[in-house]
Amino acid sequence: MEKEMNSPREDLIIGRNAVSEALRGGRAIDTLLVSRGERNGSIGRIIAECRELGVVIKEVDRKKLDLMCGGAVHQGVAAYAASHEYSTVEDIFTLAEERGEKPFIIICDELEDPHNLGAVIRTAEATGVHGVIIPKRRNASLSYVVGKASAGAVEYVPVARVANIAQTIDELKERGIWFYAADMDGENWCSVNYDGGVGLVIGSEGRGISRLVKEKCDFTVSMPMKGKINSLNASVAAGILMYEVARQRAGIKAKG
Amino acid sequence: MEKEMNSPREDLIIGRNAVSEALRGGRAIDTLLVSRGERNGSIGRIIAECRELGVVIKEVDRKKLDLMCGGAVHQGVAAYAASHEYSTVEDIFTLAEERGEKPFIIICDELEDPHNLGAVIRTAEATGVHGVIIPKRRNASLSYVVGKASAGAVEYVPVARVANIAQTIDELKERGIWFYAADMDGENWCSVNYDGGVGLVIGSEGRGISRLVKEKCDFTVSMPMKGKINSLNASVAAGILMYEVARQRAGIKAKG
Repeated sequence: MEKEMNSPREDLIIGRNAVSEALRGGRAIDTLLVSRGERNGSIGRIIAECRELGVVIKEVDRKKLDLMCGGAVHQGVAAYAASHEYSTVEDIFTLAEERGEKPFIIICDELEDPHNLGAVIRTAEATGVHGVIIPKRRNASLSYVVGKASAGAVEYVPVARVANIAQTIDELKERGIWFYAADMDGENWCSVNYDGGVGLVIGSEGRGISRLVKEKCDFTVSMPMKGKINSLNASVAAGILMYEVARQRAGIKAKG
Repeated sequence: MEKEMNSPREDLIIGRNAVSEALRGGRAIDTLLVSRGERNGSIGRIIAECRELGVVIKEVDRKKLDLMCGGAVHQGVAAYAASHEYSTVEDIFTLAEERGEKPFIIICDELEDPHNLGAVIRTAEATGVHGVIIPKRRNASLSYVVGKASAGAVEYVPVARVANIAQTIDELKERGIWFYAADMDGENWCSVNYDGGVGLVIGSEGRGISRLVKEKCDFTVSMPMKGKINSLNASVAAGILMYEVARQRAGIKAKG
């Protein structure tokens, strides 16, 4: 049987007071839901605060909001809590240094599917990645769904948000990171050296890596495709590449 | 903005006549939805036919069905069309023979998440897998969601359903297939030979591979986990293993 409609998701903060309290307490909010047309009283202030914090704001029908809140009194406002706080790029370098390893960083270039972002973070945790960098816009954020899809790995892998991926790549190149774009028509993924600091760039599900970001990369790496479909699921492709980097770094010999 | 509630999913067949027609026309049905308590008239026959075909049958609240159907008259019945027809195990062997290759088969042991099954089929298509075998029960079926998640790969990869995975493994062993269980504490995934006929067994998201199925496997293969989480997303793990088989078969040399 499917889940009944009338139980609200456990990460949903319902009502003006509860959402205001969460904001005051510094709790990370992923998405603010506002009933369509509702703008009176404290809602304006809540929206303004959320906008300042970079929270995604969605207008929804009152009926839909009623359903999402399972009939609880929402006064036109509800919010999804974020699954985890963001780190900084500096945190990622610190972690690499603490472990005495060359940085191993995943860069997501507009990865929109929260299941994919979660699965990427999960594999990142398993392969010793020091951090994941995502852009502030047009990328899945650290929502409850991402946290669940990561199987809890968001607790252990720093995830940093930056305003501009291309600019961040430029800055990280200065710090000794080499960038590998996961894309078509590149070198075989396992024939390339990942000896130095590694920045692995994963593109969006529909459009791949944007042109500007790809031009900044030092290598393009590809998995050969034997069939008619011309791309892999983003988190699967990322997983194959992360394990190749981990394999080479651990000195695990491959057959053949 | 999120999708409005009042547009039904495009693969939803709404109403008794439409569902009866689909059944008569031999169209593959994935799931039958029946309004709770509704059993009068032609519904009994529709349920019986679907049961015989192995269609998943779900009882839902009338209100929920109203919503799913976007207000269209459903007379207590709607059905999700399957994304594709099933093949047989024989079809899989035929495809391998046509290509002049040793069979490369994926076996899903109760993979429940349709996104994972879709991603597995997508990578299977890219790595030249000859077919995917799933159990009739407790596994995602070839639904619309699986078709979408496969990016269309369901069109090209035969997917066969069997009643009993353990028994199928026994039969396939007789035909020269070696079975590799993707599980913890096995040999390094890239240190094993995949020269013969390969059956790669992927377990369920929560429980892994069932004991009985695992005992039938010839090898256990693992990806080392460096962090605190003890498993990978099922479709990511499957993807890493499929690419290792494809790499060895294509004679692609790995660094190191």
